[in-house]
Formats: sequence, C-alpha cells, structure tokens
Amino acid sequence: MSETTHAGNGISTEQAGVEQELVDTVLASFDKAEDPRLMEVMQALTRHLHNFLREVRLTEAEWNTGIDFLTAAGHITDDKRQEFVLLSDVLGASMQTIAMNNQAYKGATEATVFGPFFLEDAPEIPLGGDIAGAAAGQPCWVEGTVTDTSGNPVPGARIEVWEADEDGFYDVQYSDSRIAGRAHLFTAEDGSYAFWGLTPTPYPIPHDGPVGKMLKAVGRSPIRASHLHFMVTAEGLRPLVTHIFVEGDPQIEIGDSVFGVKNSLIKKFETQPVGTPTPDGRDVHSQSWARTRFDIVLAPGSDLR
Amino acid sequence: MSETTHAGNGISTEQAGVEQELVDTVLASFDKAEDPRLMEVMQALTRHLHNFLREVRLTEAEWNTGIDFLTAAGHITDDKRQEFVLLSDVLGASMQTIAMNNQAYKGATEATVFGPFFLEDAPEIPLGGDIAGAAAGQPCWVEGTVTDTSGNPVPGARIEVWEADEDGFYDVQYSDSRIAGRAHLFTAEDGSYAFWGLTPTPYPIPHDGPVGKMLKAVGRSPIRASHLHFMVTAEGLRPLVTHIFVEGDPQIEIGDSVFGVKNSLIKKFETQPVGTPTPDGRDVHSQSWARTRFDIVLAPGSDLR
Repeated sequence: MSETTHAGNGISTEQAGVEQELVDTVLASFDKAEDPRLMEVMQALTRHLHNFLREVRLTEAEWNTGIDFLTAAGHITDDKRQEFVLLSDVLGASMQTIAMNNQAYKGATEATVFGPFFLEDAPEIPLGGDIAGAAAGQPCWVEGTVTDTSGNPVPGARIEVWEADEDGFYDVQYSDSRIAGRAHLFTAEDGSYAFWGLTPTPYPIPHDGPVGKMLKAVGRSPIRASHLHFMVTAEGLRPLVTHIFVEGDPQIEIGDSVFGVKNSLIKKFETQPVGTPTPDGRDVHSQSWARTRFDIVLAPGSDLR
Repeated sequence: MSETTHAGNGISTEQAGVEQELVDTVLASFDKAEDPRLMEVMQALTRHLHNFLREVRLTEAEWNTGIDFLTAAGHITDDKRQEFVLLSDVLGASMQTIAMNNQAYKGATEATVFGPFFLEDAPEIPLGGDIAGAAAGQPCWVEGTVTDTSGNPVPGARIEVWEADEDGFYDVQYSDSRIAGRAHLFTAEDGSYAFWGLTPTPYPIPHDGPVGKMLKAVGRSPIRASHLHFMVTAEGLRPLVTHIFVEGDPQIEIGDSVFGVKNSLIKKFETQPVGTPTPDGRDVHSQSWARTRFDIVLAPGSDLR
C-alpha cells in the first residue's frame, strides 16, 4: 500500500508532483531555442498536451490507439488526399485558425474555411460566364457587388469561385484531369459581378480513412453543408476566403462537418419555375434554374490580419 | 475601425465570443458518441487543442507548417521507423503516459519508457549467459535480485534485456537480420540473476526526419543517456518496464532526449582494470570489463495499473 494520501481524483500529491516535474523538465528543454516564437509555440504545445494527458489519465492502450491513428493518417495522405487537414477540419482547428486570423471587421463579409479543393490557374471567364464546364447540376445565376466598408464599389476585384458537382465531387476528384466547376472573373467598373454556376448540394468529406472512422465512432456525420467557395482579392483590401451556404439546407441544422457555417453567409437560392426567362437570355434547355445574390464587402488593408 | 473595445491581449470581447462559440459547437458535436470514454477523450482533446491555438494565436502560416510536419512524419514512418512515437517521446508525452499508468509504489523499482526497439522472441540464455551475440562493446557483468516489496525473493521471474551496441545501434537497425544485444533469462530459486551484457553508451534517436529537424531548430540534443533496457514479469506482480542508466554519463546532466531518466535508476558501472578476474571465470581476452548491480523490486498485482 502506498502511504501517500489520495485526493478525490485518485492522484496523490506525490504523483502529481512527479507528473508536474516532468512537464517542467520538458518545458525547460525548449529554453535554448533561438527563435522566441518557436520557443513560445513549442512550450505552449507541451503544456496543453500534458494537461490533456493528465486530465483524461490516458491509458497506455489509448496512447497506442493514438499512435496508430496518426500512422494511418500519414499513410493515406498523398498529393491528392490530406488526412491531417481533414483531422484539423473536423476538430474545428482549421476554422479556429481562420477565425483568429480573419477577425470580424465591422460591416465586412465574414471568412470561412479554405478547404483542400482550390486550384491555382482556374480559367478566366467574362462577366456572366459559366464556371460549370463539364460539371453537372442545376444551373444557378450568382450575382452581386464587391464594395469596401465605406460602400465604394471595387472595380477589377478578382473573384475565384469553385464548387462540387451535383454528385458532390470536385473536378480534382475526377479520374481524368478535366477542369470543371471553377473559374475566376473580375468585377465591372461599378463593382458588380455575375456568373453561372451550379446550385450547391451537400457532400461528405472523404470518410474512408481514419478521420472517417473516428467520425463514425462518435456518431458524427461527414457531410458538409451545401456551399459555393469564393476567394476575393483587390489591391489595398484584405483578401477574403469564404463560402456561401444554401438557406434551408437541413445539414446546417444537423451540423457542417468542418464547422464552416456562419449565419451571415447563408443565402437564399431561389429555384425558378421551368420556362422562367434567364437574366441574360441564356437558354437552359427546359431545365429549372436557380438564382442567388451575394454582396461582398472587403475589409481595409492587410494590417489587421 | 472596429467599434469593440480591446483587452490587453488585443482580443475583443466580441472576437473571444466567436472563438468560444466555435469551441462549444465542436464539443457538442461529440455529444452523441455511444462510448462515454471516447466522448470524454475527444472533448478533452478538443478543449486543450483550442486552448493551445487561442493562447498562441496560431497564424495560418504556422498551421501550414504543422500540417507539413505531420505529413512528413507520416511519410517517414514505416515498419521499422516510427516518427510519431519519437514525437511523443521528445515532447515527454510517452514518459507522462508511463508515469501515470505505472505510479510509484513504495519501495518498488520505478518504470521508464519502453522505446521502439523491443522484440518478442529474443533468445533465452542461462543465468550468467551472454546477451551480446554479434554486438560489439565493453563486456559488462550485470547482477542483482528480483524481490517483492516485502523483500521475498521472486524465483522464475522472466527478465528481458536489450541494448544498443557500442556504436549506438540496436540489432533491428542492422542491415541484416542478426539478433544481438538482447535475450531473456529467469531468476534462480533465491531470486538472483546475472548475465553478461555491454556497458551502455549514448546514442541519438533517429534524427534525420521531421522530429530531428525540430530538435535542431530548438537547440535540443537528440542523444539519449546511456542505458540498458529491462522488462520483468512474474505471476501476481506488476510488470515492470524500465532501464538502468550509467552514473557519471554527462548526458544525464545535458538532458535525456526522451526524458526517461529517474534518479533511482542511475547505477554505478565500475570498469575493472585489464586482467581483473571475472566473477564467473570468463576469459575476456585482455579487454577491460565493467560490472553493475541492479536489485529489482516488483510492486504487487496489476490492480493498481
């Protein structure tokens, strides 16, 4: 029998001292780092990691499970699949990092997660052009303006847009190398823009790996709320990475698997009866089509990032 | 200009609210987990992870560095190399898990890290046998007893021992499949044991990967204090995984790279003048040799693990 007394959590003062001494030794091991920021980050990581281990009293079997999880995540990750980004996403760490680095600026459009599906060098389309390419889905007219927080129009702002097709796949997930469901365009002199896209539909994040198994084990859905990605840049204004979400999408209530939804980003997508004339006279071949409006307000400068 | 007021850390009350709301949403996403322990672990992991992110105000560039680090760790990990274990080791997480699950028991020998180099099915040697095999180094006579905490000898206890050679390599790091520097033996009726091993020497943990780069960036040595591994099991007693360390090894002061040293495990290794007769009459061919003593005390039962 140990002669030490035990507190309510079953940890003796002596044992707590052993554990804290170890934490202090690990913290001190970073004291010689030349980069003060690296020292700060590693010491904070150490403190919070040990706080986690000690709070849950991690067992050796659980430690092994954690090592196996990270190993499997590493082995499924390649040029096209990033399981560590997914892990960060489903733990809300990606969204928190974005929330901290793109703080709300009064009147400016809010940011959300970037996601893994952006590509540099998407084709340029003219105002009113179509981003869908070979991607299938309900045509959707998207229009709006880009202004600064004083309400001045921003001409020539670069708008990158990208989205999944009606089956929930981005072009980079296709077996061939078609570019579809992505493009960039520039705002007109009055700050306005418009393009044809597809009405967004819900889709799961890749869930055949360790992150998907974890979500299943805890009873969580891998489904992302339907959304359309935007990245908007203009000289002298803060770059904006965001999505718009579809009002009424039940997944918003169930919970977006990566916690990307913000109320200000939920937009009405209004499906038009078949036969309704399109805004630009485009013939949609007797399909139904939808329309939405997204007025984008960019925060000033990059000094606040 | 934001109209919110800012606290000393530069975070507005409004921003802090946004960040906390995100944490609360992620925590709630685990509420439906059927396994209460899994729920507890994932929610604690979420809380501590977000506390870390928010405390250091992680930048998006640092988040990318973290993702790249984990990806590189995953890609260097294979059947023979375990970078995530190394990462856990150098952050003291392995030692903390061992410390929590093998709490000090009055009078019993202390545990330390298991390490990645144990093999099942090491050969059996008789009492006084040699574990070195093809491994080179200074011969070292190791002797002691295994007793319980009441001082009763434990006959037939199984002792697994393993160690690196004088160049710092374990047999599993050799290019061929020789077994060397490892064996198991059993204590005699009086609880005593003895074997020939090698005087331990310091060696680096594998440091050509991301963990090694991190250690270099923070000015830490990858060197482990010289040690000899033991795993001791006997019916009805708590299994013990530990090392002994070499008194006077300067690496003990500099800092063992995986934080495995405990004062009670530092032992005198006494080098004998060339020509000193060996305890069992073995001819060491005019080499110097060393001797050490390690009396092992096993804690009762497994109910305290």
